[in-house]
Amino acid sequence: MSERAALTRATAFAPASVGNVAIGFDILGFAVPSLGDRVTVSRRALPGVEIGAVRGVAGDLPREPRANTAGRALLAMQEALAPGFGFTLEIDKGIPLASGLGGSASSAVAAVVAANALMAKPCTSLELLKFALAGEATSGGDRHVDNVAPSLFGGLVLTVGIDNPRVKQIPVPDGIRAVIVHPHMAIATSTARAMLKGSVQLADFVWATANLAGFISGCYTNDLDMIRASFEDVVIEPQRQALIPGFQQVRGAAMQAGALGCSISGAGPSMFAWANEQAAAAVAAGMRAEFQAAGLATDSWIVNLECAGAHLT
Amino acid sequence: MSERAALTRATAFAPASVGNVAIGFDILGFAVPSLGDRVTVSRRALPGVEIGAVRGVAGDLPREPRANTAGRALLAMQEALAPGFGFTLEIDKGIPLASGLGGSASSAVAAVVAANALMAKPCTSLELLKFALAGEATSGGDRHVDNVAPSLFGGLVLTVGIDNPRVKQIPVPDGIRAVIVHPHMAIATSTARAMLKGSVQLADFVWATANLAGFISGCYTNDLDMIRASFEDVVIEPQRQALIPGFQQVRGAAMQAGALGCSISGAGPSMFAWANEQAAAAVAAGMRAEFQAAGLATDSWIVNLECAGAHLT
Repeated sequence: MSERAALTRATAFAPASVGNVAIGFDILGFAVPSLGDRVTVSRRALPGVEIGAVRGVAGDLPREPRANTAGRALLAMQEALAPGFGFTLEIDKGIPLASGLGGSASSAVAAVVAANALMAKPCTSLELLKFALAGEATSGGDRHVDNVAPSLFGGLVLTVGIDNPRVKQIPVPDGIRAVIVHPHMAIATSTARAMLKGSVQLADFVWATANLAGFISGCYTNDLDMIRASFEDVVIEPQRQALIPGFQQVRGAAMQAGALGCSISGAGPSMFAWANEQAAAAVAAGMRAEFQAAGLATDSWIVNLECAGAHLT
Repeated sequence: MSERAALTRATAFAPASVGNVAIGFDILGFAVPSLGDRVTVSRRALPGVEIGAVRGVAGDLPREPRANTAGRALLAMQEALAPGFGFTLEIDKGIPLASGLGGSASSAVAAVVAANALMAKPCTSLELLKFALAGEATSGGDRHVDNVAPSLFGGLVLTVGIDNPRVKQIPVPDGIRAVIVHPHMAIATSTARAMLKGSVQLADFVWATANLAGFISGCYTNDLDMIRASFEDVVIEPQRQALIPGFQQVRGAAMQAGALGCSISGAGPSMFAWANEQAAAAVAAGMRAEFQAAGLATDSWIVNLECAGAHLT
């Protein structure tokens, strides 16, 4: 891209996201624009990254740049681009920690989008995706491309490959809404990850791939029957549902109220459903009532699946 | 459907097919209209099914109706519809046995399409699919929906579910051709099935699902880069390739000649590639030369991926 007058300070918002989407474990996610993280990046003379402040719903995050996905993403950006100056970050967390709504991805995405506004030669979206993924690469190693890509691009996003990711924004049938219900409890992603078996039975592999392919075909062809028939996670959800009190009842209430499908958002405990716009409020109410019955207060959102991704504010 | 004047004798052709298509093990296949089986069904007074003749490239098939996919499919049709008369079959095999080109599916499909023309109330395509699948249900139990559905419907076909199958014809980018190369050897499907591990590593599951989703998205959006990047079987092909002499060289020659992807057709030994129409002849020549170097004579076909399925002749 061409040179341009760069800013010395910029703020970006990156939406929360639902990873996995029942049938796309680690590869598919959609943005949830009702909540997100906001990151302000200022230019500073000294190279390196400094975290100036962390505010909002998760104000006690570590200030050490390497211990923070936004800090790590900007360190990766500095290393690759050597812009000749450093970054000071302020992070406003709008996404609760360990909620299953992609908060760490959102911080990393907002940071790289804000920092990009400070560059004389801005990066492409795919380059930003790689920096945000580097932010997510902890020493142990999972990179949640299924959260990072939808937070950056918006909408329902498939990512193929990690080192050289290819992104596909998948259309969603008109009038479909996502319902997100966040129960007030936390599940560490590492816990939810560690409990998964290391392999998938071949018969479940075939079933899961049929559902994934049916779901994606249904999205491209506005085929709600196919989406409904294939909107089922036969691999991950059976293993993780025990972490979420009332899971079966919450899911049952959503389906009873007319949802196309309902499953765990990312590693949980948040849950999501898809429903047409007429049914969405009843789906949300049913899910909340069942969490309530299980002793959990909730927040909920009903969002349009076609939405913008991260942007400067 | 409405009543109509039924025939007393009808002949149907059902094309061969490539199952799996690298990224859709047991769920995805495409029709190969250059070869196929032809079945003639005649009405006979006595209920039941009788196989009158088997001719063509596999003339020594069993004459016992239950030992034959076409016979079993028609027995299932008789049981469900009780038409008040029986069927006599003549089977002209155009598809070599154990070639990996869906011959048993093709016979079953041709049989139900021909028999349907004898019915006063013809069945829907989905009903015919179920009867043809019943023909494939051996006592041991695999039903090759990835061969049956494309042979019946034509084109590239995804099937979700077996007992209540849902079918999706997936568009293929313009100008793409399939190359099919059949080396003169046989692999029993049961052998190729028995050698598969019973489970898939979780990391391979994620990789395989990403490829499947990328491939299908690429087909719906004419995205040849995405199709090429995702056209790789990381689960089944590594286990089965040892059955096929020269596999690596054949695949390498196809890719070298510009193929989008190349893998095993069904359980093998036939192999297939996709390529644009300019490259297809060179891809076929490269694959045949490598089979030749491995000591195997071959037949090959270059076919249009958009094609008709089974039909009366």
